[in-house]
Amino acid sequence: MRTLPEILARRPARDSRFLRIEEIDLAFSNGARRTFERLTASGRGAVFIVAMRDRDTVLLVREYCVGLDRYELGVPKGRIDPGETALEAANRELQEEAGFAARKLTSLITLSLLPAYMTHKAEVILAEDLYSQSRPGDEPEGLDVVPWKLSELPALLGRDDVSEGRSIAALYIARDFLAGNFRPRETAC
Amino acid sequence: MRTLPEILARRPARDSRFLRIEEIDLAFSNGARRTFERLTASGRGAVFIVAMRDRDTVLLVREYCVGLDRYELGVPKGRIDPGETALEAANRELQEEAGFAARKLTSLITLSLLPAYMTHKAEVILAEDLYSQSRPGDEPEGLDVVPWKLSELPALLGRDDVSEGRSIAALYIARDFLAGNFRPRETAC
Repeated sequence: MRTLPEILARRPARDSRFLRIEEIDLAFSNGARRTFERLTASGRGAVFIVAMRDRDTVLLVREYCVGLDRYELGVPKGRIDPGETALEAANRELQEEAGFAARKLTSLITLSLLPAYMTHKAEVILAEDLYSQSRPGDEPEGLDVVPWKLSELPALLGRDDVSEGRSIAALYIARDFLAGNFRPRETAC
Repeated sequence: MRTLPEILARRPARDSRFLRIEEIDLAFSNGARRTFERLTASGRGAVFIVAMRDRDTVLLVREYCVGLDRYELGVPKGRIDPGETALEAANRELQEEAGFAARKLTSLITLSLLPAYMTHKAEVILAEDLYSQSRPGDEPEGLDVVPWKLSELPALLGRDDVSEGRSIAALYIARDFLAGNFRPRETAC
């Protein structure tokens, strides 16, 4: 196991580099009125990449997550940079985080994070026909790459370092797609 | 289809009732230093409820979500109130949102929202042996209750009002559990 990073300091932040909070006044069709808060995303969305090394083996990465202050195991993911398509972002993040590129990329579905409070969306990309190719990323340390069999997905959920809802959903959806049980809509985003 | 609520006003909020942003300075074990932001949850967590009307039929609800400004179809969910266990919160939310209570409640897994940026966690609760019982909630309007077959989960993902990662993960995990393929850890939370 990796040694957890040391927390040197914590402080409240009044302004965020990434998050903007909005208040919205609403009138429902039955006349009810409410004021809701929501977080607006500043970027172009994110990608979650289900990268298949073979027909049953997916490449997961283990990364430190400051929200939970622990290492989490899940699919590679990242933000879509300006000027990139979702498929380009997926192929870049896969090279940065897992050291592989893909010859075949398929958009499966768009997932929301917290639709009642956040505007954030992420596209799930299936990456196939992989080859070794690394790119330097902005990660503070290299990530462990962990192969896992899709046929052993329930055992993955029993681990204490697997928890992210969208990562788990992405794996199940990819498994259904590869088994011929799920057909993506034409425009996933 | 429901008529969307009218947005009467939008304004930036400097302070949030629900969200606190923290900056954290970190030293990784390789010497790298980073300052990360995270959102700290103020409450006791949330529950996502997979409520089975029969062995294959789950009760979904359709609710307006201001984050995406649309009605979203997913499992009933809500916050854990002070003094409540996760199972008690699940049974209360199920009565408020779907008009049912459950005689049997099982904790399946704890899901995180965005582990790299948020401390938020939600417990997935399977609710079985249901009976009709309503409780008034704080929803601005009644929710449509939509039965759906777990055996037709891939078709659900093809809808344009189904997107929440944790709701989709909860349905897949419950399906695996009911099929005998997934065994929860002893302490889900």
